[in-house]
Amino acid sequence: MNNIKLLTGTSHPQLARNIAELLRMDLTPVEWIRFSNDNLFCRIGESIRETDVFIIQTSRPPVNDILMELYLLIDAAKYASAGRITAVLPYYPYVRSDKKDQPRIPVTARLIADQLVAAGAHHVVTMDLHSPQTLGFFRIPADHLYAAPVIVDYFRKRALKNYVIIAPDAGGVARARFYAQRLSLPMAIIDKRRDPKLGREVEITYIIGDIKGKDALIIDDEITTGNTVFQSAEALLKDGAASVSACCIHGVLQGDAISRFKKSKLKELTITDTVPHDKKNLPKNLTTLSIAPLLAEAIRRIHEGESLSAMFI
Amino acid sequence: MNNIKLLTGTSHPQLARNIAELLRMDLTPVEWIRFSNDNLFCRIGESIRETDVFIIQTSRPPVNDILMELYLLIDAAKYASAGRITAVLPYYPYVRSDKKDQPRIPVTARLIADQLVAAGAHHVVTMDLHSPQTLGFFRIPADHLYAAPVIVDYFRKRALKNYVIIAPDAGGVARARFYAQRLSLPMAIIDKRRDPKLGREVEITYIIGDIKGKDALIIDDEITTGNTVFQSAEALLKDGAASVSACCIHGVLQGDAISRFKKSKLKELTITDTVPHDKKNLPKNLTTLSIAPLLAEAIRRIHEGESLSAMFI
Amino acid sequence: MNNIKLLTGTSHPQLARNIAELLRMDLTPVEWIRFSNDNLFCRIGESIRETDVFIIQTSRPPVNDILMELYLLIDAAKYASAGRITAVLPYYPYVRSDKKDQPRIPVTARLIADQLVAAGAHHVVTMDLHSPQTLGFFRIPADHLYAAPVIVDYFRKRALKNYVIIAPDAGGVARARFYAQRLSLPMAIIDKRRDPKLGREVEITYIIGDIKGKDALIIDDEITTGNTVFQSAEALLKDGAASVSACCIHGVLQGDAISRFKKSKLKELTITDTVPHDKKNLPKNLTTLSIAPLLAEAIRRIHEGESLSAMFI
Amino acid sequence: MNNIKLLTGTSHPQLARNIAELLRMDLTPVEWIRFSNDNLFCRIGESIRETDVFIIQTSRPPVNDILMELYLLIDAAKYASAGRITAVLPYYPYVRSDKKDQPRIPVTARLIADQLVAAGAHHVVTMDLHSPQTLGFFRIPADHLYAAPVIVDYFRKRALKNYVIIAPDAGGVARARFYAQRLSLPMAIIDKRRDPKLGREVEITYIIGDIKGKDALIIDDEITTGNTVFQSAEALLKDGAASVSACCIHGVLQGDAISRFKKSKLKELTITDTVPHDKKNLPKNLTTLSIAPLLAEAIRRIHEGESLSAMFI
Amino acid sequence: MNNIKLLTGTSHPQLARNIAELLRMDLTPVEWIRFSNDNLFCRIGESIRETDVFIIQTSRPPVNDILMELYLLIDAAKYASAGRITAVLPYYPYVRSDKKDQPRIPVTARLIADQLVAAGAHHVVTMDLHSPQTLGFFRIPADHLYAAPVIVDYFRKRALKNYVIIAPDAGGVARARFYAQRLSLPMAIIDKRRDPKLGREVEITYIIGDIKGKDALIIDDEITTGNTVFQSAEALLKDGAASVSACCIHGVLQGDAISRFKKSKLKELTITDTVPHDKKNLPKNLTTLSIAPLLAEAIRRIHEGESLSAMFI
Amino acid sequence: MNNIKLLTGTSHPQLARNIAELLRMDLTPVEWIRFSNDNLFCRIGESIRETDVFIIQTSRPPVNDILMELYLLIDAAKYASAGRITAVLPYYPYVRSDKKDQPRIPVTARLIADQLVAAGAHHVVTMDLHSPQTLGFFRIPADHLYAAPVIVDYFRKRALKNYVIIAPDAGGVARARFYAQRLSLPMAIIDKRRDPKLGREVEITYIIGDIKGKDALIIDDEITTGNTVFQSAEALLKDGAASVSACCIHGVLQGDAISRFKKSKLKELTITDTVPHDKKNLPKNLTTLSIAPLLAEAIRRIHEGESLSAMFI
Repeated sequence: MNNIKLLTGTSHPQLARNIAELLRMDLTPVEWIRFSNDNLFCRIGESIRETDVFIIQTSRPPVNDILMELYLLIDAAKYASAGRITAVLPYYPYVRSDKKDQPRIPVTARLIADQLVAAGAHHVVTMDLHSPQTLGFFRIPADHLYAAPVIVDYFRKRALKNYVIIAPDAGGVARARFYAQRLSLPMAIIDKRRDPKLGREVEITYIIGDIKGKDALIIDDEITTGNTVFQSAEALLKDGAASVSACCIHGVLQGDAISRFKKSKLKELTITDTVPHDKKNLPKNLTTLSIAPLLAEAIRRIHEGESLSAMFI
Repeated sequence: MNNIKLLTGTSHPQLARNIAELLRMDLTPVEWIRFSNDNLFCRIGESIRETDVFIIQTSRPPVNDILMELYLLIDAAKYASAGRITAVLPYYPYVRSDKKDQPRIPVTARLIADQLVAAGAHHVVTMDLHSPQTLGFFRIPADHLYAAPVIVDYFRKRALKNYVIIAPDAGGVARARFYAQRLSLPMAIIDKRRDPKLGREVEITYIIGDIKGKDALIIDDEITTGNTVFQSAEALLKDGAASVSACCIHGVLQGDAISRFKKSKLKELTITDTVPHDKKNLPKNLTTLSIAPLLAEAIRRIHEGESLSAMFI
Repeated sequence: MNNIKLLTGTSHPQLARNIAELLRMDLTPVEWIRFSNDNLFCRIGESIRETDVFIIQTSRPPVNDILMELYLLIDAAKYASAGRITAVLPYYPYVRSDKKDQPRIPVTARLIADQLVAAGAHHVVTMDLHSPQTLGFFRIPADHLYAAPVIVDYFRKRALKNYVIIAPDAGGVARARFYAQRLSLPMAIIDKRRDPKLGREVEITYIIGDIKGKDALIIDDEITTGNTVFQSAEALLKDGAASVSACCIHGVLQGDAISRFKKSKLKELTITDTVPHDKKNLPKNLTTLSIAPLLAEAIRRIHEGESLSAMFI
Repeated sequence: MNNIKLLTGTSHPQLARNIAELLRMDLTPVEWIRFSNDNLFCRIGESIRETDVFIIQTSRPPVNDILMELYLLIDAAKYASAGRITAVLPYYPYVRSDKKDQPRIPVTARLIADQLVAAGAHHVVTMDLHSPQTLGFFRIPADHLYAAPVIVDYFRKRALKNYVIIAPDAGGVARARFYAQRLSLPMAIIDKRRDPKLGREVEITYIIGDIKGKDALIIDDEITTGNTVFQSAEALLKDGAASVSACCIHGVLQGDAISRFKKSKLKELTITDTVPHDKKNLPKNLTTLSIAPLLAEAIRRIHEGESLSAMFI
Repeated sequence: MNNIKLLTGTSHPQLARNIAELLRMDLTPVEWIRFSNDNLFCRIGESIRETDVFIIQTSRPPVNDILMELYLLIDAAKYASAGRITAVLPYYPYVRSDKKDQPRIPVTARLIADQLVAAGAHHVVTMDLHSPQTLGFFRIPADHLYAAPVIVDYFRKRALKNYVIIAPDAGGVARARFYAQRLSLPMAIIDKRRDPKLGREVEITYIIGDIKGKDALIIDDEITTGNTVFQSAEALLKDGAASVSACCIHGVLQGDAISRFKKSKLKELTITDTVPHDKKNLPKNLTTLSIAPLLAEAIRRIHEGESLSAMFI
Repeated sequence: MNNIKLLTGTSHPQLARNIAELLRMDLTPVEWIRFSNDNLFCRIGESIRETDVFIIQTSRPPVNDILMELYLLIDAAKYASAGRITAVLPYYPYVRSDKKDQPRIPVTARLIADQLVAAGAHHVVTMDLHSPQTLGFFRIPADHLYAAPVIVDYFRKRALKNYVIIAPDAGGVARARFYAQRLSLPMAIIDKRRDPKLGREVEITYIIGDIKGKDALIIDDEITTGNTVFQSAEALLKDGAASVSACCIHGVLQGDAISRFKKSKLKELTITDTVPHDKKNLPKNLTTLSIAPLLAEAIRRIHEGESLSAMFI
């Protein structure tokens, strides 16, 4: 692994260290300063001239600081004559702002794609985007990785029986269907509607498909406050599900989401480590699967010019 | 309506004429030549210097000729010093090639977005994209219109009762849900899977949701050969639906799709006129709703700087 | 004032309102949401199609959120078909990160210039940049305003006698010289050096020029913690100055800067309102000059195509 | 020849195979699908990450499909992280649409140059452009090859005596002159004019230069319908030429051009294989010279960083 | 003529003044300074914000200074917020460097096109390019004017009889043919070749076509030293021409070209005023036709959005 | 040193030769032609395909010809398929036109940065810019070298005592301070002002800081006519300096600067060889320090991917 450099901001030091360890290399030191006027500043600690630079930075609060760190690293690397700059974004920032479904709103996922290119990125690696179309926002080669091999493997080992995969909303049906097919399980869909007779405020939850007496496994791309999942669990149990678990790829889990999970009717929650959490605080029925091996292997293959698709057959 | 010009290629002359008529103006003449070496050529027939040019061109076979016509018109208009060039694409070409869901394939909808900008378009208007994210492929302002006002109005007048809206696949659930909510109808979903025991070739159709004794109305963004819809109709009837109709916004209807529709178990089919058809050949149970008024109004508002979102409240 | 729209983020509502009032118009409403995953979101509240949009956003902590708000507004405005988008940045973010004076650091002021253009800005207005060269980072027309007319007028009215203008460091000599010339006052310079004999930590303050018995007026472009100014005041008094005041254009005043000012040996401090402060907390010997009239006049002239340079003769 | 990949669309499989054979390598497999809605689709069959990709695609009817294939391959290769993408266009599409000699027409050769770059091409190789200036349309390095070494060698071996080179029109004089000089032969020019007395329709052919009793050899860059050449032959014979042959580099030969050639007064016709033809249908007095060795050598030199100009001394 | 500004460098003040007079307006004052280090500098003397700026600058020695003046004016105008910037180049600089006909040479006409755009030009107007393809080098709308209406009119009035139009080389045949057709005159061509037997130095002039006893009128796009024309005149007279005149659109006439013309066998020389000359020094048989009315009319039409092609019917 | 090519224009052949010699390689031959119409032309004499091209060109009169030579070389190299093109500009052209300090003037240093990129440069190396911010004008990696190691070393060896460093104006204080700190010497500043009472023409020179009885060493980035330095010397001597010397990095020395230096009161002048001079004409008290070793080492490190910052610790 010559001529390759691994850099990171402050978003997820543990993930960056894990990847570096798997690649048997050190992280390139970066000094971070926050000036008294709140301006961020970085200094890359060793020459990266003509090297193959990978910058690992995941989205987590404070999102805009994390994003600025990424831009600063790219800018510094570009003008320090880096050979190639690849931004590795396990959890892509503003990933759900991917369409203009109301007038006069930003499409922030596209804005960020443009700004990464404007800053000087040559290549992007990301994981489990909310919509696969988002990859088309980039005008540079972008590799879209999936945690699916890790997740499918985990659930296959548990040999789920009597289970039904649940799509928590219309937008998530394609993802749920993918897992349902891989795990050879049936699928049901949650459809929430505002009742026109009862006014805009009252939302009624319909379940489309058969869940009676079955163990429900909600599949979603991310869990933030957990509201969607916790409410879905109650509705599913009310409609006759035997139990409800959930697997959400990006475990954002903001605010008091973890303590609310402990109190919720969710039997189990499975996430990956694309977003950092203090492992001490996590309850036992919250399983974190690591995507560090996937990212390390992807970085190795990109650096050495090997096929990435071979990882996902 | 001063200083505005309406141009069109050969893709859908009737639609262009209808729009021009609604705007009480003439189409700017364009001469089209196909040279003996198969090269296309156009000549815009009057000065368009500093005018607000709208080029109406919809996708239909031969798609690549139609697309080249559009590029030629934009190139000719740009270098003839047009003030602003808006490409109006009622049915966007290659609209379903919007994501890289296999290795080493093109994302043609994005490629075309880039090439429209490279050719010189300043603005784009399109309708009912397969995925709303596709709009984010453009680096110029793009207006995404919906045939929904026309379609919802049509079905509301028919006061559907005992109906259920059908999403023909996972990708279409969000659109089906939109119409189900507007028409206050329940929804069901068709899920086709390859049976791993029976081999890759055998696909089994599951219906998620309750359709027994109901009149099923399949909602989809386009109908090409009709295979999906005709097979879905059979599966729905077999599972107990009272009748099956379909509404597909873009009526591409290629090959012998129309004659196969006549023989199919579909009770009715509703499309719009984003793709041209010879009206003589259309059976009575195929209804074509016109989106010309929508497009004419959008063009007028864009030219005069009025809000478009006001059309879709 | 037809066809002009004034938008603002959350950075300095009072300044935006003052400008709007001076232009006798209302601010265009913008709805701001911070999602539970810390993602920002905005919705422009009325049609801005083909209008002349001015977005007023000044830099203040949290700087990266404020910057993201600006990018979101520009993105939303661009794709909402705004006619022209002018970013008005009274205090430019990261203004001192304007040169690569160490290896492998970002030049953030240039990065932001590029990202404003990438987001869709057509024009920029800013004030009293740390270096005038920074304007050259823009690839779009940019107007550089100066608070000088307001400040010079203020000090001329006070008829300063026995005063000497102080440049607080080598980089500030050109600005100090400008004010010294306008106010017909002599100048002195503070030169801080690390003593090689005493080690890197010990910095000795030299004063170049004659200040004995004079009232010193430090001129600087910004005051953040106030450290530079407060220490300079002590050094000047120690070297024989009769009194020390300061005028810093951008009054960033972070942390406990204001309470430390109260305890400092500085007689008076003059700033402008490019950065917001709660007026209740400001001591009497801190004077805030308003640049709202300057900005309002600049916006009016840009919109109406009048000369800006005429404002600074 | 490591790390190099040869791809092709459906335009001229034999030429691509010949080049691959000369380079002792295999073509990278590409799967082509035409969907029922006439949309083209391709899938590159093996990893091309970081390789040196050459895409061989020549213009022939249906030109716009062939062009779209090229764009799709470039798009697929770019986002599959190809190291470098070189488009090899033996017969450049729309090569005669290279100037705006009427108002409001496209300059399609330039449009295509821009769209190749927009799609992601880094380098272009083409042959015997109609005008050498067309190379200047590219904003990427482009190599312009000439079939001249092959053609001059062929005619030198035939030791032409009593011959005169004929330029078939004013635009072709420079090319004719080049061959006349290389073959040490005199030159004459055909000048067709509309007779103002006889009306626009009647065109009179003048021959400038001495052809009486000589064997005329028309040199042109392409032959499509053959009209120009066949009519020129009659005019030359009528004016006293002993015989008339022709050499046209790009043998497009559309429609019934070959059968009309058989009936024409042309003694011999020489073309190259930049455009495909079924060899069975070609008459004996039509000679096809192969440019595959030239292209193979050019590709090898580009890949290995050797001089191309050395091929044309 | 509101909101339009006419600027010029030092290349051809008389032409700029003539155009301004025809448009009944004043030239915008520009102050030019050449610093002691040979750096050029300009200051536009009045506000041009949001105006329609036309910069008239023709190529003449010192060419690179003239070109730099043009770039400086465009840069100054862009960042002074000009509404639109049109570069008017009656004689385009480096116009004959339009193709790469040797390895490793620049295509300077293309380079300049790119640099005009990089500097900020939105539109270009030029006249009688050496090759019409050169217009395709621009990525902005460009209008190509022809002096033909003025020249044809001049010769038609003189009712030429017994004349033959001469193309001085292969590259000039298309232009000569255009004038021959418009003036209803025959054409002949001069073909100079190096004799392989006599060595590279010896060039023999062949005349293709019939000139015996006729008055020859050489047509060329430019005359610089006059060598080509003077030698052609001798060859034509030697071969039996009754007299030889010449019409060269761009009268560059460098060095002692004018005094050599006086001594040459050329009967008459006709040029236009795209390049400046001191009228006192011009002999009587040198006629200068003015293209100022053409340029003034073109500027007026561009500013007012009228058709330019109407000028050349 | 494989695969690297060194090219140069006519600006400073000796410097280019010195660098080539230090790198133990030959300069790539370039043929230069100036046509009779004053157009420049170049031909690179050997294949540079896929090589690492460094073009050494310094600014000196005639500046615009020198600049055009650089653009021509970059254009020729780009389209000759050079692997990477680095423009090495020891004295950057128009380096003092780096800010818009008056309305409607160009910022030529930025314009040139853009045009170098538009021409095809991938990388820039320059030395001792007037303002360090100017580096931010580039959108490509740029290395800013300093002659400081050479100059500081030279003065340290001379063990200056009783010296004071002089900044000749406000803009030069930061540079003077850098050298003062490195040489452990005090500093003074020259402040010239126009006296409002005496009218704009009369400028009075103030000296800020203590120089009485000291040997003054003026530090400046360039000396052109020498006016500033010669007048400063007189003022310093008048105010009591024991002697005055100067060190100006870029020795432009135009017109009769050298003969005026001989007559001036300046004791010594030290420059570098970034600008060429005939060594015969230089007086003994003018010392030229060579920066060729610095540039050669920088080129070697850039080519081999080694750190440049290590050169300036």
